[in-house]
Amino acid sequence: MTEDQNAEIEIGKHRAVIDSLDEQIVALLNKRATESLAIRMLKPQAQMGLYDPKREEEIFTRLEALNDGPMYNDDVREIYATILKVMKEIRA
Amino acid sequence: MTEDQNAEIEIGKHRAVIDSLDEQIVALLNKRATESLAIRMLKPQAQMGLYDPKREEEIFTRLEALNDGPMYNDDVREIYATILKVMKEIRA
Repeated sequence: MTEDQNAEIEIGKHRAVIDSLDEQIVALLNKRATESLAIRMLKPQAQMGLYDPKREEEIFTRLEALNDGPMYNDDVREIYATILKVMKEIRA
Repeated sequence: MTEDQNAEIEIGKHRAVIDSLDEQIVALLNKRATESLAIRMLKPQAQMGLYDPKREEEIFTRLEALNDGPMYNDDVREIYATILKVMKEIRA
């Protein structure tokens, strides 16, 4: 086996791990969406507005504190900005 | 307890679930980043370019097939577009 083929096989193994991680990430994002929808239904009853910048900042701060890399905190923030945007707009 | 207070308590419970889900999501994203970095190191050896649109489309198609909601497929695609962008640019 050449060095090239060996590297290709290694890449294939890492991609299989990524596929399994992505499956778990999407399942957790769907659970998160279910919770977001539940909160959205409760907000009018609790006299709370649908958009809550304080809670968003709390989420960013918390995730940055527990982030232990290799992602940098601004990577986490960039991904979560999109996640929170999608969750806000999600259709029931 | 008023109905308002009750709704606030329920929202607090859902937020605690979200905090726990976010912790798991960030941990999985960091594992994914480790795998992405490993692949990036192997690519020159495998004579592969760093950007691979075919693999990106394969990831989207796969995740849409296993998405069982409440997120729509375009929600998954929007979040993953950001995840893949961050993973491509991640610093070792």
